[in-house]
Amino acid sequence: MRIAVLGTGTVGEAIGSKLVEVGHDVVMGSRSAGNEKAAAWADRFDERADHATFAEAAAHGELVVNATAGVGSLEALRAAGADNLSAKVLLDVANPLDFSGGFPPRLSVANDDSLGEQIQREFPQARVVKALNTMTAAVMVDPGLVPGEHEVFVAGDDAAAKQEVSALLESIGWPATAIRDLGGISAARAQEAYVLFWVALMQANGTPVFNIHVAR
Amino acid sequence: MRIAVLGTGTVGEAIGSKLVEVGHDVVMGSRSAGNEKAAAWADRFDERADHATFAEAAAHGELVVNATAGVGSLEALRAAGADNLSAKVLLDVANPLDFSGGFPPRLSVANDDSLGEQIQREFPQARVVKALNTMTAAVMVDPGLVPGEHEVFVAGDDAAAKQEVSALLESIGWPATAIRDLGGISAARAQEAYVLFWVALMQANGTPVFNIHVAR
Repeated sequence: MRIAVLGTGTVGEAIGSKLVEVGHDVVMGSRSAGNEKAAAWADRFDERADHATFAEAAAHGELVVNATAGVGSLEALRAAGADNLSAKVLLDVANPLDFSGGFPPRLSVANDDSLGEQIQREFPQARVVKALNTMTAAVMVDPGLVPGEHEVFVAGDDAAAKQEVSALLESIGWPATAIRDLGGISAARAQEAYVLFWVALMQANGTPVFNIHVAR
Repeated sequence: MRIAVLGTGTVGEAIGSKLVEVGHDVVMGSRSAGNEKAAAWADRFDERADHATFAEAAAHGELVVNATAGVGSLEALRAAGADNLSAKVLLDVANPLDFSGGFPPRLSVANDDSLGEQIQREFPQARVVKALNTMTAAVMVDPGLVPGEHEVFVAGDDAAAKQEVSALLESIGWPATAIRDLGGISAARAQEAYVLFWVALMQANGTPVFNIHVAR
């Protein structure tokens, strides 16, 4: 599949690399065409990895991953262009973490709204699915790093889009039984709120390499 | 131990009953002295269960449990009286859930503040410990309802108060290994934010009887 990964940070690099490894044709998108991190990333792979602007990457992708910093995601997606997102699955893995007040971060949108919902409202033709934002990048693409049962949560208004994302998650190592559907995109506010708890757990655990299992 | 349980709802009743069962002397506090739910509750037990106003109950308790509805907790604790809370462990299990906009609820305080912190700020002589707010009442007092490993989280600025709460949790059935310290009372914002995620899980699971295990 042709996939755009928007964002050149730790999350974009981890997801982009994994998607190339499992056989996809990935273009990493960034603000400017000559982004050094994106170029260095693409150089590590063969012709199935490339880099481009947000707009060029999104135009290339049949599926688009938003791995930009959450506080800049709407701006990055505007640069990608609504036409380049239309009718496509938009996998939103970003968190609207605002570190301007120091650590721990606050969320720039929270409680009764979320980044996932903001994206879906601003790009109504995109099929937004929120997933993977509840763990560190290394665990997103290698769930076996965490022993035992633990889960990944998906939310979105388009059932077929959630199925496509679930298939993608399975292709990168998530057991089907570990993929939990939380409902419509409004559940993104729950997934994003959880990240404040995740930060506290990360501090208490002294490592970001963990995840939760819902026991019932 | 003499314990005050402020609040006559499902949570107050569950915690109050369990504390009587394990041998404590419990007074359930409510706004008015003649509260019918509190009286009916006390009638189910022997002389180690009684009911009274918030102030009388708090005066009785060596330890005070805030099991009031979170949006009314500050008002209830003002009625209990700062002098009756001074130097005591104040176990805050409440969530500031605001259902005025329908379901799912929002939080009346969130993101970079929390009910736990509001209580600690307004009652600086109380030794506030946030715990148990991350699960349904039945699981709080009977962790064995949920199979397998799962955890309860404590936060507070007073280490000795957290130890007292941990001992209380162990006395009602929580294994010591399941009690996780998240740090100071500012971690209450993480514990309370989690509740938005808990509500989404509850909807997806179709039951409130679950809890999370941190796999690492």
